[in-house]
Amino acid sequence: MTDSASPSTPFLDEAARLLGPRGLTTDPDLLAPWLTDWRGRFTGRACALASPADVDELASLVRLCARHGVPIVPQGGNSGMSGGATPDESGAALLLSLRRMNAIRRIDAEAGQATCEAGVILQTLHEAAEAQGLRFPLTLGGKGSATVGGLISTNAGGSQVLRHGSMRALVLGLEAVLADGRIFSQLTPLKKDNRGFDLKQLLIGSEGTLGIVTAATLRLLPAVAERIVIWAGVPSLAAARTLLLHCDAVEGEALEGFEVMPQASIDAVVEHLPAARPPLQGRHAWHVLIEVVADRAQADTLRARCEIMMADAFEKSLVEDAALSASEGQAEAFWLIRETVPAAERARGPAVQHDISVPVEAMPSFVETTAPMLEAEFPGVEAIAFGHLGDGNVHYHVIAPQETDGRSWNATTGKAISRRVHDLVTEWGGSISAEHGIGQLKRDELARLGDPVALSMLRAVKQAMDPEGLLNPGKLI
Amino acid sequence: MTDSASPSTPFLDEAARLLGPRGLTTDPDLLAPWLTDWRGRFTGRACALASPADVDELASLVRLCARHGVPIVPQGGNSGMSGGATPDESGAALLLSLRRMNAIRRIDAEAGQATCEAGVILQTLHEAAEAQGLRFPLTLGGKGSATVGGLISTNAGGSQVLRHGSMRALVLGLEAVLADGRIFSQLTPLKKDNRGFDLKQLLIGSEGTLGIVTAATLRLLPAVAERIVIWAGVPSLAAARTLLLHCDAVEGEALEGFEVMPQASIDAVVEHLPAARPPLQGRHAWHVLIEVVADRAQADTLRARCEIMMADAFEKSLVEDAALSASEGQAEAFWLIRETVPAAERARGPAVQHDISVPVEAMPSFVETTAPMLEAEFPGVEAIAFGHLGDGNVHYHVIAPQETDGRSWNATTGKAISRRVHDLVTEWGGSISAEHGIGQLKRDELARLGDPVALSMLRAVKQAMDPEGLLNPGKLI
Repeated sequence: MTDSASPSTPFLDEAARLLGPRGLTTDPDLLAPWLTDWRGRFTGRACALASPADVDELASLVRLCARHGVPIVPQGGNSGMSGGATPDESGAALLLSLRRMNAIRRIDAEAGQATCEAGVILQTLHEAAEAQGLRFPLTLGGKGSATVGGLISTNAGGSQVLRHGSMRALVLGLEAVLADGRIFSQLTPLKKDNRGFDLKQLLIGSEGTLGIVTAATLRLLPAVAERIVIWAGVPSLAAARTLLLHCDAVEGEALEGFEVMPQASIDAVVEHLPAARPPLQGRHAWHVLIEVVADRAQADTLRARCEIMMADAFEKSLVEDAALSASEGQAEAFWLIRETVPAAERARGPAVQHDISVPVEAMPSFVETTAPMLEAEFPGVEAIAFGHLGDGNVHYHVIAPQETDGRSWNATTGKAISRRVHDLVTEWGGSISAEHGIGQLKRDELARLGDPVALSMLRAVKQAMDPEGLLNPGKLI
Repeated sequence: MTDSASPSTPFLDEAARLLGPRGLTTDPDLLAPWLTDWRGRFTGRACALASPADVDELASLVRLCARHGVPIVPQGGNSGMSGGATPDESGAALLLSLRRMNAIRRIDAEAGQATCEAGVILQTLHEAAEAQGLRFPLTLGGKGSATVGGLISTNAGGSQVLRHGSMRALVLGLEAVLADGRIFSQLTPLKKDNRGFDLKQLLIGSEGTLGIVTAATLRLLPAVAERIVIWAGVPSLAAARTLLLHCDAVEGEALEGFEVMPQASIDAVVEHLPAARPPLQGRHAWHVLIEVVADRAQADTLRARCEIMMADAFEKSLVEDAALSASEGQAEAFWLIRETVPAAERARGPAVQHDISVPVEAMPSFVETTAPMLEAEFPGVEAIAFGHLGDGNVHYHVIAPQETDGRSWNATTGKAISRRVHDLVTEWGGSISAEHGIGQLKRDELARLGDPVALSMLRAVKQAMDPEGLLNPGKLI
């Protein structure tokens, strides 16, 4: 430890004794990488970085913090989108890393369950499940750094929510340390348990404000034995939604992804990544990526079923053109285009981005109504939406007029546009945070636009669970 | 209104003005049927029976109750199993019937959603969904009286939880009146919404202690086009569990029910209902009922797939004998045997019943270990388990020795047996209430055996949401 790491207060002395040199540091160089969120939008300070080795050590640490009134900011992979794991600038908080608690305690292949500590990285879980012929059916761009604890605390989504749900649907059991240092332990999964309302549900998606998730039992599924990715061109977002209904009716049990992109996004991808080859020759107002999978029992018939599904779609004039991936390599190439959209859009210049949802059936008219509206109200901007149509969730980017200075535009016009987008989403009965959470990024917008009854319930529960307000203060509520 | 219905207090005067003669009565004859639970185990008193016409009327009534400090006991179909909708004997509470709020506000067949008021009876919902070529995939014995509000408040289960989950998994949106009379309204279903932790989840399963559910948006599925019920004989409960894993691996997407019954229960059914014909000729330690269904797209191949699944099971020696239903009539006849088990068991004489769950994989050894233990500890009793093995949930009956006087046995030995069963379930990491809820029946047992951390969280949230303790007092916590 360097000089500056020497604990300088009774709290830090006690914490250092409790956690040992591997478990606590005040070294600025070691803290620095974790004090700024990965997108570089928020930077804070912390009195130290704690990395407890296990739940009991963490529980003792939380009791110590409670005694000294030290706020705690829990952090997993620091890959969140809303600054939920970045402390404020006061330096009063303890930054709590869960990364050292990274054991996969148990995989029960027969029951399809994995019990993981909070610090297990998503990709590690994927690999551990694969090794047993299983899979964990949730993935997202940050899988190489996102941790189980963070995914649960933010109820993460991703591109495979359509069939298997967000994290909430995959958490069978949970362990957490509460604000007073007691351990809530419900790791044993019971398919039916009606001993009161479900306390696990409170902690999922609470962004570390009600408790610190330390471990979870997660649902695993049989490995995918065959997958086909279909690329289709359609004339409108409404047509994409009709195609979604068709696919869901015919192959609902196999349908795992349904993503949409406008032609402009495909053009941006081609410009950004010249090696990318759009699967369709022609231009289409909207492009749809459909993922259909099968486990071993259903694998043989998957291609034939997909061909029938798409032949039917042609016959009903639901698509203008379509292509099925002929190999796993091609399936990956199709996905690469979809996954390059965010980077390609960012490369087009300054933009404000929104992670929004409305009821699935309302999404086509939402986009078709609001995009021209924004383009009229803010001359020169371009509004584009892409993403998880199957979940009623798109990423809605509004791109600045060409040759705009990004920084000043973001702070003024960009901010006004975001307010307008959030107003519109709220009018349409939607959510200003579909899958990225509130964190510090959207806290004021939630306070401005949230239903006052829901907000007061959130606050009442927060007050009940963390009366001193020491768990991730300044986030969510 | 009769004389005795005249409001006698300022509260009743105001409530009568608010609700009108259809909405409030103090007539003992009108109250009587609702003051005793349907199993006749609990009887209470109430100052009046209120039946508001809509959510706004209910909200005004709750504000009135809050002003006067009048406790409220919400009630749906009065078909609960744990006395959760029966007031205490003080007569201080207002009995609140949700039965008049029984509109199905909307069915969106395309989106697969129904928005129902709390008083909609389950069977009515089934029929409304069927009329649109859809189904609501949860059913239970009391479907002719159980209401949507009650099903949500108790997070009801039933015999089709295996694939589609309990009520919690089927509630897409929720409306409720809170303790202070404010209306929580999240009826619009969003597949992704991360504006804080999910408040709907708090109200589901809270037995009316945190708020009064007034409406919900529920998930509907495509109608079943074909179903096959398979009856199998197996040598042990462990063998039944192996068969479950086999069926799940081969036809997991089609598997909707997996029920087990010991030979003794089949014998009891035949004695109780002489017309019942067991599907298998021989005797088997355990009988298994397997329900496999398909929608229109998958219907053609269902029988062939079931035949392959069971031929494989034979080859692997997983079953001693098996029969597939040849017609819908036969499928119903198979289910009739399963559904007659509770009545047939009751007819065998006094017994104590338990609605318990343990992890699915632990259920065989739980039953095989604890039944002989109980029979040794309480000479002359017979312990039998039947029910939803697929959910790790059995109904565990312990039958009194022959020629026992039911009443006194229940109050003494029966009570001791129940405590012992609950102790054992807790030791095995299970739940003393798998699907029936806590109500007043199991409140003391929950307080005795519940995890102290979980109990204090339940109480803290209750205190936050209902500080005056007016919502269904004396239930759950």
